[in-house]
Amino acid sequence: MIEEPSFIGDQMHAWAKELFPLNRSLTGEGLRKTLQFIKNLCPDLSIQEVKSGTKANDWEIPEEWNVKEAYLVNLETGQTIDFRDNNLHLMGYSVPVNKIVSRDELELHLHSLPNQPDAIPYVTSYYARDWAFCVSENQKKNFGSGNFKVLIDSTLETGVMNFAELYIPGVNKEEILLSTYVCHPSMASNELSGPVIALAISKWLQDKSNRNYSYRILFIPETIGSIYYISKNLKEMKENIKAGWVLTCLGDENRYSYVPSRKGGTLADRVSLKTLKELEVKFDEYTFLERGSDERQYCSPGVDLPVASLMRSKYGTYEEYHTSLDDLKYMTPKGLAESFEMIRTSIEILELNKFWKVKTLGEPQLGKRGLYPTVSTKNSGRLVEDLTNVIAYCDGETDMIEISDICNLKFKRVSEIIEVLLAHDLIEEVKCKSEN
Amino acid sequence: MIEEPSFIGDQMHAWAKELFPLNRSLTGEGLRKTLQFIKNLCPDLSIQEVKSGTKANDWEIPEEWNVKEAYLVNLETGQTIDFRDNNLHLMGYSVPVNKIVSRDELELHLHSLPNQPDAIPYVTSYYARDWAFCVSENQKKNFGSGNFKVLIDSTLETGVMNFAELYIPGVNKEEILLSTYVCHPSMASNELSGPVIALAISKWLQDKSNRNYSYRILFIPETIGSIYYISKNLKEMKENIKAGWVLTCLGDENRYSYVPSRKGGTLADRVSLKTLKELEVKFDEYTFLERGSDERQYCSPGVDLPVASLMRSKYGTYEEYHTSLDDLKYMTPKGLAESFEMIRTSIEILELNKFWKVKTLGEPQLGKRGLYPTVSTKNSGRLVEDLTNVIAYCDGETDMIEISDICNLKFKRVSEIIEVLLAHDLIEEVKCKSEN
Amino acid sequence: MIEEPSFIGDQMHAWAKELFPLNRSLTGEGLRKTLQFIKNLCPDLSIQEVKSGTKANDWEIPEEWNVKEAYLVNLETGQTIDFRDNNLHLMGYSVPVNKIVSRDELELHLHSLPNQPDAIPYVTSYYARDWAFCVSENQKKNFGSGNFKVLIDSTLETGVMNFAELYIPGVNKEEILLSTYVCHPSMASNELSGPVIALAISKWLQDKSNRNYSYRILFIPETIGSIYYISKNLKEMKENIKAGWVLTCLGDENRYSYVPSRKGGTLADRVSLKTLKELEVKFDEYTFLERGSDERQYCSPGVDLPVASLMRSKYGTYEEYHTSLDDLKYMTPKGLAESFEMIRTSIEILELNKFWKVKTLGEPQLGKRGLYPTVSTKNSGRLVEDLTNVIAYCDGETDMIEISDICNLKFKRVSEIIEVLLAHDLIEEVKCKSEN
Repeated sequence: MIEEPSFIGDQMHAWAKELFPLNRSLTGEGLRKTLQFIKNLCPDLSIQEVKSGTKANDWEIPEEWNVKEAYLVNLETGQTIDFRDNNLHLMGYSVPVNKIVSRDELELHLHSLPNQPDAIPYVTSYYARDWAFCVSENQKKNFGSGNFKVLIDSTLETGVMNFAELYIPGVNKEEILLSTYVCHPSMASNELSGPVIALAISKWLQDKSNRNYSYRILFIPETIGSIYYISKNLKEMKENIKAGWVLTCLGDENRYSYVPSRKGGTLADRVSLKTLKELEVKFDEYTFLERGSDERQYCSPGVDLPVASLMRSKYGTYEEYHTSLDDLKYMTPKGLAESFEMIRTSIEILELNKFWKVKTLGEPQLGKRGLYPTVSTKNSGRLVEDLTNVIAYCDGETDMIEISDICNLKFKRVSEIIEVLLAHDLIEEVKCKSEN
Repeated sequence: MIEEPSFIGDQMHAWAKELFPLNRSLTGEGLRKTLQFIKNLCPDLSIQEVKSGTKANDWEIPEEWNVKEAYLVNLETGQTIDFRDNNLHLMGYSVPVNKIVSRDELELHLHSLPNQPDAIPYVTSYYARDWAFCVSENQKKNFGSGNFKVLIDSTLETGVMNFAELYIPGVNKEEILLSTYVCHPSMASNELSGPVIALAISKWLQDKSNRNYSYRILFIPETIGSIYYISKNLKEMKENIKAGWVLTCLGDENRYSYVPSRKGGTLADRVSLKTLKELEVKFDEYTFLERGSDERQYCSPGVDLPVASLMRSKYGTYEEYHTSLDDLKYMTPKGLAESFEMIRTSIEILELNKFWKVKTLGEPQLGKRGLYPTVSTKNSGRLVEDLTNVIAYCDGETDMIEISDICNLKFKRVSEIIEVLLAHDLIEEVKCKSEN
Repeated sequence: MIEEPSFIGDQMHAWAKELFPLNRSLTGEGLRKTLQFIKNLCPDLSIQEVKSGTKANDWEIPEEWNVKEAYLVNLETGQTIDFRDNNLHLMGYSVPVNKIVSRDELELHLHSLPNQPDAIPYVTSYYARDWAFCVSENQKKNFGSGNFKVLIDSTLETGVMNFAELYIPGVNKEEILLSTYVCHPSMASNELSGPVIALAISKWLQDKSNRNYSYRILFIPETIGSIYYISKNLKEMKENIKAGWVLTCLGDENRYSYVPSRKGGTLADRVSLKTLKELEVKFDEYTFLERGSDERQYCSPGVDLPVASLMRSKYGTYEEYHTSLDDLKYMTPKGLAESFEMIRTSIEILELNKFWKVKTLGEPQLGKRGLYPTVSTKNSGRLVEDLTNVIAYCDGETDMIEISDICNLKFKRVSEIIEVLLAHDLIEEVKCKSEN
């Protein structure tokens, strides 16, 4: 069902390399440039904006934040820490500052990680006005004493929050949601892996000849982006979305991970588990208590969309997470290619997964259709075993994922057998009430 | 949620000590005095009576039994066995006798326990007219041969059966049933532990400022008492009772025990299991096949009330059971206090357990309410984990007991978080159809 | 409930001995003689016929096949292989042949089993015109070279397919289906065990005084027989059949086996499992994926009858299967008698299994009915334990099979207790919606 994605890993890694230096945040130029980069590769992308201060359920669109420059200088030694070197150095949403401070005062505005002395931590303060620099523990230790010049030439003012949406229509109005976020600065697996895989999947879907489902692919700032989007589109989403995934943490080569929807058991959950079994990979199965991205909104009470997460090493479980160590070395072309394969497999399973009903009462006569060995010997029954087992559960109530489970067959094998049965006009599709 | 019950164990044990010598049975003076003792401490108690011979479903109220004196004398040695020494010596409902009998004839009317040579067994013959004395195996062995005078100055005649009922109204008409029995003579854990805990709980409930539920507390003769009460009140009981417990075997310090309702899974069962988990005690979980008190009636087909049992060492499982060894030493103030705690915890859980629904679509913004750290660092997500997990299941369909299970949080912790959410107007109560 | 079947094993084995030499197939004289033999013993049997070429759902009744003689002769050595010695030697449905062939050409028409050098395999070619001889590997090796005369004096022409049906009416229209097949030539456990047990059960049922269920017992050619029967009777079958079994592979003394219905959990499945537990035998529990006889038709989507299989060593799992080694030595009187017992037990359970409701509210008073020891001592509760436990689940919703499961009592014990309760007018039958 799936061709080997040879170059796709390199391609996605190259995109990530271009996007890496941009200073993404909930708002601002870095976010806009990121979305424009994606639109250049995928012109159907619709980039939208919403004004600061707009209400969205319990929340409000924040002010737009932009940074011209930001640095610290030790006035004695001339040592500097500069936002230009790594945009993680500046705490997200830092207010403008231009003053001389003592080391003691500076300490109140420095973040570092004592247990990871080479890592710059990723810190933000979206909803309380403050400023800070983030440095490695080693930088902090060696930054000397005395007085320091602090310059943050940032603006924090009424503007817009941007996000982008791609709708790829299919035969049916029923939709699959893919949601990824574009609000973290220079980090790789826990940021760019999502957008570059969403982009690659989008291009693959656009090239796919017949799509049963329509696809809604969102590139949004995390949390506030999904909350805003839900506030505007809930009714339509609840009507149409039959399964969805949050795309994040897809870039490393370590474990596979699965976080279920709030109550589990949705089509997205069933497809996720079938995909991981189909790929024959080991994986960590988390509970919804261990969630951490936009499924928090999509699965919240009253929203309750069937959204799960398929990941590699999950946020919060790897030490590079939310530090400068989650970089383009931690995220590899191979890891991205494997994750692309996982998401594509899920979509292929979804596209193929249907309810079928055998058209005969009693087993069909396979022999007259050339599907049965003409001479019945002691072992010939085994030859048609898969065929008859699949037929036995083509009862209009059991979808192909469940048939695959019951019959201990790969989904791919069930799909091949369904093709044979269709070719011989032995089954017909049954429209079941959607599971969502 | 629960204060340490310091004096309560001693208090209950003192009540038991006063009640211990009374010759309780299904009917008679001992029963009446027991109920009057309770009424003196709890004036709202309503003592009722029903005439011997009254029909109650398949049963009939027995004749009233009273005993003036009863003894055996060895006419040779002068050795005596006297009801005044221990009312267990006389088999319950023994008919009047005044005659001289041989040792052989006496043997037919003596009960003892060869394997427990110091224990006087507890024996009754409610529904077949007979007489007997119950003695320790050692007494029996040493009681000599020859002729014996038997005197039983008892009456067995038309009278009344007494029972008592306490109704403590709450905000709602929905009721919690507590049922205990008052028909065993001088035994402690399998008799007096139930009434004294029911009394202590009643006084605590009457002092409790706001009760959501109403409470119906029954002090009845076992079996015939509950059968009569059900025969008169079934319709109202089925309408109102949402959970109930039979209170018995609550006085020792050994194991905790749980007997489910007939089919399990009722609110009483769920609260029982949550209570035992909340108290972090080990317990024996029995099946309904191992029942043995008034849940036999409350859970019978067609009655089917949601009634479970929370006990310490269960009837029939400890060797002191139904003998003179189940005394005021076997039942301790500590055991009673711990059991009081268990029943009170169940009631507190019941009173607090509600269905809540979050008022926002998508997660509420905790930050603007001071519920979220203002600076987001690598680990700050953990701080609000409990809060967001509870919110995630405030969906109007999941009660607090289930939230506590799903979120691996103590019920008490869930309750605290619900208080915080209420204080910030983030949730509202949802009235669910009752589970019963 | 069940008497020891002393002679029945010998009786069934003797019937099988008479039927063994007949050249049964889907059609023809051997099949007719087999059915006539059964009708001679069971005159109510209705033998029916359907014309070749008749459509039956996706299938068509095959031509009738008859064999006058068939042999191979080595023209050099005079060695022969003759259908008269063992009718397995001729492949089922072999077309007429009369010619001289070389060893090389003969090889294309010889079947043998290299791993079982003494066994003649059972081979058929119902739906592709061909001819072949089946021989043991040793025969094949020693049959020499040179030229061979092949003579098959068979006819394959428009005729009829026969099958037979026995309807044994009961008090109710609800039916139990027993289906067995009569289309294999000289083989024992995987052929004759089914018909002889079906015959013995039929005679036992006809002698049984009161039958709650009606019984429909089918003797049919496998697959095409059940497909034809279903095509004519589906509506009535779906209305009436509450449980059914395919009878096959019942003749050896080895394991017991159970194959569930397609989705499991039907009355037939519940009775099957209860029977095996009641008999206290170890058994192999297969899945529906491992099915292999007419349950393939009875359980197919849209037919979906509650049909399971209780067997000894299952088809395909023993090495004698579908060879000349599955003979009258492999199938023993003891094996047949035990299997008869199993099927009879299932029917007895079915006949007795009902829903009961206790007529009292609260427990009935056992004492006044002499069902309770009059003196209550420490252990007397145990004596009535089974009685009160069964009563506790006589709630009109729990059938006796489930009561037996819940109460950890043998079905037979539950049945005895139900008799006692009925004798004391303590319970009444409740008609539940049938489970099918």
